[in-house]
Amino acid sequence: MRSMRLRAATACFLALTATASCLAAEPVDTKGPIALQSEGSFFIGGTDRHATGLSGLTTGPDVTREGTITTGQMYVQYQVPAKPTHLPVVMIHGGGLSGQAWETTPDGRMGWSEYFLRGGRPVYLVDQAGRARSGFDATQYNTIKLGETAAKDASPILIIGHEFAWTWFRIGPKFGVPYPDTQFPLAAVDEFYKMWIPDLNAALPADNPSYADVAALSKRIGGAVVMGHSESFMFPERAALADASGVKGMISLESGYACATTFTDQQLTSLAKIPLLIVFADHHADAPEPFGSRWTTSMQQCRDFAAAVSKAGGDVTFMHLPELGIHGNTHMFMLDKNNLRIADLVFDWINKHVEHRRK
Amino acid sequence: MRSMRLRAATACFLALTATASCLAAEPVDTKGPIALQSEGSFFIGGTDRHATGLSGLTTGPDVTREGTITTGQMYVQYQVPAKPTHLPVVMIHGGGLSGQAWETTPDGRMGWSEYFLRGGRPVYLVDQAGRARSGFDATQYNTIKLGETAAKDASPILIIGHEFAWTWFRIGPKFGVPYPDTQFPLAAVDEFYKMWIPDLNAALPADNPSYADVAALSKRIGGAVVMGHSESFMFPERAALADASGVKGMISLESGYACATTFTDQQLTSLAKIPLLIVFADHHADAPEPFGSRWTTSMQQCRDFAAAVSKAGGDVTFMHLPELGIHGNTHMFMLDKNNLRIADLVFDWINKHVEHRRK
Repeated sequence: MRSMRLRAATACFLALTATASCLAAEPVDTKGPIALQSEGSFFIGGTDRHATGLSGLTTGPDVTREGTITTGQMYVQYQVPAKPTHLPVVMIHGGGLSGQAWETTPDGRMGWSEYFLRGGRPVYLVDQAGRARSGFDATQYNTIKLGETAAKDASPILIIGHEFAWTWFRIGPKFGVPYPDTQFPLAAVDEFYKMWIPDLNAALPADNPSYADVAALSKRIGGAVVMGHSESFMFPERAALADASGVKGMISLESGYACATTFTDQQLTSLAKIPLLIVFADHHADAPEPFGSRWTTSMQQCRDFAAAVSKAGGDVTFMHLPELGIHGNTHMFMLDKNNLRIADLVFDWINKHVEHRRK
Repeated sequence: MRSMRLRAATACFLALTATASCLAAEPVDTKGPIALQSEGSFFIGGTDRHATGLSGLTTGPDVTREGTITTGQMYVQYQVPAKPTHLPVVMIHGGGLSGQAWETTPDGRMGWSEYFLRGGRPVYLVDQAGRARSGFDATQYNTIKLGETAAKDASPILIIGHEFAWTWFRIGPKFGVPYPDTQFPLAAVDEFYKMWIPDLNAALPADNPSYADVAALSKRIGGAVVMGHSESFMFPERAALADASGVKGMISLESGYACATTFTDQQLTSLAKIPLLIVFADHHADAPEPFGSRWTTSMQQCRDFAAAVSKAGGDVTFMHLPELGIHGNTHMFMLDKNNLRIADLVFDWINKHVEHRRK
């Protein structure tokens, strides 16, 4: 017998037919087999240029210093359920992470990508341009080795160590000490640390190629709800400002600094045409300095951003999980023990604010 | 109606029951829905160390230079069919690539990972330790920027440009000119170039962590056929020498230099206990210098290696595709137009040399 997980609005399940106000009713089968119509991967975007520094070797047969390379492309891994019942979702990971962050949790539970798929949604997991399977422009590091470029001009690489991941991302107030109510799967923290990979975004152009790549992807697949997290919090909005034609909904999760940006009235008017969901988790003010101040400032800036889009006529929802009675979540709440409960809230929002609107 | 692709030994399909000599008979459904028992990802291996150079910044709030990091872990992406009928397969990509190389081809056709999955085999796609979603140790590039390490001591990064990919990997004799019989999907070559990402393997320890990671993975999943390509040609053998308990079959595809290694008699005796398949494609001698000499030398070295394992009592198969009447294949034959035909040969070999042997 299949185990069914009832979505948050269980009372709604009692209704005999799905109505506009009751789109949250469908349960998600989390145990049975998964039936796929198709799956695979492709790249979107990317530009070619002639480059030096294709090898850092100074002797031997593999000294090859020049050639054409492609950078800025975005790796897209996709799965389409056998019977899609909802809009596709594009999931963009945060800083120091890859598309893997949406897959299985560190303790081996189902991640958001599989849950959304099982919920009838085609899922498009990307690696940000400049990260993981999307590659990065490494030529500067070779030309520095060869003495052709000054070392001090190298782009800095962000590497998130264990101590920072614990405190910055709000597992607890001090490395090794969790918040008493934490939802983080503490026993699997060593697996969590393996997720963190070098972040070379500082080497990208100011107009991050991911914005146009996400816009092009959303358009190519006929429209999608676009979801960003942390470093990519504002990527859905940036993609919409590049080309809104494929962006049907914007979901921005737990920003660092992104909401400090000031948008023009014209930009706000454009963004206001697309439903927007912002989600923040717990313990922002409890984080040790300098993180505590950063988080509280960031969340206030995002509230201001939400208000500005709302004022421009937008359909904006700001979810602060503790205000909904959900406590103890970290910055990485898609990995937390209650990750599917939060996914249910996102499902409901999409149903009510994006898909109902489609009709 | 579902379209069925018959495997190579179609005559065998006429038999009413699958017999030992007729294990090639099963057709692979390449069009119908895919039914999965489970899917997801995890990391295997990895070691922790205290490191400096976690940031290349010299000012601002994000100057964070020390901490604990994990490196050497291997990202593993897996899918288990609803009804597995064969041993799992571990697929390891080559240099400058990621696990993506086994997925969809540049022109959007089914890659080997989906084909093996549809053939009833649990598939474990990895990103080599030090690549893509497995991350890499980037601290040296930050300490060089900060003047703490000499630039000349940096590990060189291999970046494979378009011109090299075309000639080295035997699409044609000269950049832009294909071999007349090439099986490469030429119209999609721009998508092919997007697959190539920086290769930082020169920064890895001499005892590449991928060897132990692949051995541990194969053991963890209860035994697997392990497949390496190009840079990872000899990874199945290296994994078996690290811990043979999970390595049920070794498949080594298109080596560069790996077969130049000399193994001890004891090592050869160990390797001889596991069935071994080596596959080389076409146009080695036709490649422009210095590649032509390298490929022909490499193939001869691999023939010598195969002979040595065979002499030690091993069950060794050496497939040179042109000798089987299959012409025009590149180094990246898992992406070529006839990629599934070659997969069929691999299926047959596994059936006859690894799985039949199990009974």
